[in-house]
Amino acid sequence: MQNNLKFIEGGGVTTAEGFLASGVHCGIRKNKSKLDVALIVADRECSAAATCTTNKVKAAPIVMTIDHLQNGKARAVLVNSGCANACAPGGMEAAKATVDAAAAAMGTQPDEFIVASTGVIGVTLPADKIISALPELADTLSRDGTGAAEAIMTTDLFMKTAAVSFTLGGKTVKLGGIAKGSGMIHPNMATMLAFLTTDCAIEPALLQEALKTSTDRTYNRISVDGDTSTNDMAAILANGAAGNPIIAEKGEDFEIFRQALDAVNLKLAKDIAKDGEGATKLITCSVTCAPSEEVAVLVGKSVISSSLVKAALFGADANWGRILCACGYSGAEFEPTLVDIAFSSPAGKIAVCKSGAGLDFDEEVAKKVLSESDVTIEICMNDGTHSAETYGCDLTYDYVKINGDYRS
Amino acid sequence: MQNNLKFIEGGGVTTAEGFLASGVHCGIRKNKSKLDVALIVADRECSAAATCTTNKVKAAPIVMTIDHLQNGKARAVLVNSGCANACAPGGMEAAKATVDAAAAAMGTQPDEFIVASTGVIGVTLPADKIISALPELADTLSRDGTGAAEAIMTTDLFMKTAAVSFTLGGKTVKLGGIAKGSGMIHPNMATMLAFLTTDCAIEPALLQEALKTSTDRTYNRISVDGDTSTNDMAAILANGAAGNPIIAEKGEDFEIFRQALDAVNLKLAKDIAKDGEGATKLITCSVTCAPSEEVAVLVGKSVISSSLVKAALFGADANWGRILCACGYSGAEFEPTLVDIAFSSPAGKIAVCKSGAGLDFDEEVAKKVLSESDVTIEICMNDGTHSAETYGCDLTYDYVKINGDYRS
Repeated sequence: MQNNLKFIEGGGVTTAEGFLASGVHCGIRKNKSKLDVALIVADRECSAAATCTTNKVKAAPIVMTIDHLQNGKARAVLVNSGCANACAPGGMEAAKATVDAAAAAMGTQPDEFIVASTGVIGVTLPADKIISALPELADTLSRDGTGAAEAIMTTDLFMKTAAVSFTLGGKTVKLGGIAKGSGMIHPNMATMLAFLTTDCAIEPALLQEALKTSTDRTYNRISVDGDTSTNDMAAILANGAAGNPIIAEKGEDFEIFRQALDAVNLKLAKDIAKDGEGATKLITCSVTCAPSEEVAVLVGKSVISSSLVKAALFGADANWGRILCACGYSGAEFEPTLVDIAFSSPAGKIAVCKSGAGLDFDEEVAKKVLSESDVTIEICMNDGTHSAETYGCDLTYDYVKINGDYRS
Repeated sequence: MQNNLKFIEGGGVTTAEGFLASGVHCGIRKNKSKLDVALIVADRECSAAATCTTNKVKAAPIVMTIDHLQNGKARAVLVNSGCANACAPGGMEAAKATVDAAAAAMGTQPDEFIVASTGVIGVTLPADKIISALPELADTLSRDGTGAAEAIMTTDLFMKTAAVSFTLGGKTVKLGGIAKGSGMIHPNMATMLAFLTTDCAIEPALLQEALKTSTDRTYNRISVDGDTSTNDMAAILANGAAGNPIIAEKGEDFEIFRQALDAVNLKLAKDIAKDGEGATKLITCSVTCAPSEEVAVLVGKSVISSSLVKAALFGADANWGRILCACGYSGAEFEPTLVDIAFSSPAGKIAVCKSGAGLDFDEEVAKKVLSESDVTIEICMNDGTHSAETYGCDLTYDYVKINGDYRS
């Protein structure tokens, strides 16, 4: 299976052929230099798919997008930051007003729009501000995706973009995307948003299946704070501009597409974890030799979600007992006396627990390993051949500061 | 059902007839003024019961206690702070050595001991220090339970004790206890321990059932940080000294006993939540008009466990959207558009959400309500007649500080 999968430096949501994007300031955010609404448009009707929050409380744009994607087709994405349009009176009407106006401006149908919002819950979307910004959004559409990437950011500190190219049926196909994260991140499917575009030709049902599986393997394996948002969404548009034989059944081409999708989503997911609210480091939990992938994921998510583990890593404290404890309450069936634990980072590797019991280790070395900004917790369960990585960040003073007074 | 249930001011683990306790410094803790080992002894063989951690990783004393209580009988409790005796080589041997020596000193059998530890994981219990302290522990046994209450504290800021008296079969029965949660200088896993004594005559199987149910209603409805310890334990000894007709079947007497047990456990559980690591306030989540008690508990625990809700309350920020969001990912089935939310405290009450949507409210008033040290989140689901209260605390800079560098 030769796929020639390669990351494209600086690639993003407009890297695939036939996609344009823009981002402007419409006034939802008070800071005039902060872009707060984005538009992504394809040159034709696309196969489209989305995975949305599992939260029982769903924002209006989530409900609308699920409805619009029933036919597996879409052509554009309209997304704002600064207001979640969730749990607010008239939210659905506001979403509809913006989409109707956007469709009219672009000469498309309202149900060709994927619509998303992120920001404060309980505030109705100021539809008029978005509608007033539509001319500027349309006028500034371009092959430069950075405006859109910036406009979806809330408390994110850096833009999250990624793109790859790969070969399918002799054609070069491109797939890229943008994402935002920061708080309320425990995507099961969290407010995490990801928008992907590809010029691959693929049937909607297969696109949905690939996105669902990829979401489970990437966004659903990160956690910033254990809170699954009302607004989470990952959506993809595939316009077929690459000219590859359309992927209409499972097989080698589908697998190649999945690998490419996973690669982009994993990069974006890890960026979200790394840029978690107040975070100073990316924490990877690598669980190996597990009896099943499910156990590896369950154990790993429990570890990266533990407040005690997260606080210890903020302090570069090799408090491995908290890690084994988090394994123990994960709900997974396993034998604690088989478990080995080590920490690794660019500064080296140090084993701290063997067969469920503590090892004598050099605290100075451990401190050095844990002081890096990219730390891996290695858990070997010695009870099988399965493995999984999960991703999180440390719990810091800044997390408390950011969330102790978010609305003011 | 006349039970004459009354709280006894200053009551604790030695309030029931026939119980003695002591607490001394044996050297596990470096600070010589910090008591670190406690002994509680009954005047006769007792009906005994315990509920222990559900963590797959269980400390040696947990495993030993479960074994000792197979016959529903016990006579004494030996407990230390400063070392969890979990995930450490030779932990079981160390626990056995201390219990064997304690039994010899008290003229009882080792299997009459309930044994518990709390402190750092991964360090083997220094059995010799406890054994050396046994003569002093025995010599200082008294009707004053404060030494024991102090000795089980780790980072707790205040002692947690409670006792009640009530009437059963014409006799006055007493039931009291001590508990520990998490504190400030050596916090580990928010290990929660509770030891209860009563002079009630009751069969072991009913005692176990009452304790299990009461634990579910009290300790299992609090959360400090979502981490379930390897060492959690609630245990009770019932010596029958009150002379009431022995409770050998369910009926009115059993219900009266349960009410008394619930009252003591609830007081201790709320004290643990209030004294959570770094906490500045007790948060009660009162869920009413729920379709079932299970739903009320599921929703309430999700809310008090949310890092975002906890951080918002630290900042006295009426960010109710995070509350509805936490309801939504609780796993409970409910209709978000029926939910009303209000905040109350000694400073007043303010409604913030009606039928799943935000209300206009006075931010200044909300700030005042939320600035109290005892805040209630009132969630009315408008979908039934069931209710439940859950208890937690806010997430603060001090939580991060305490847990970012615990071992140093």
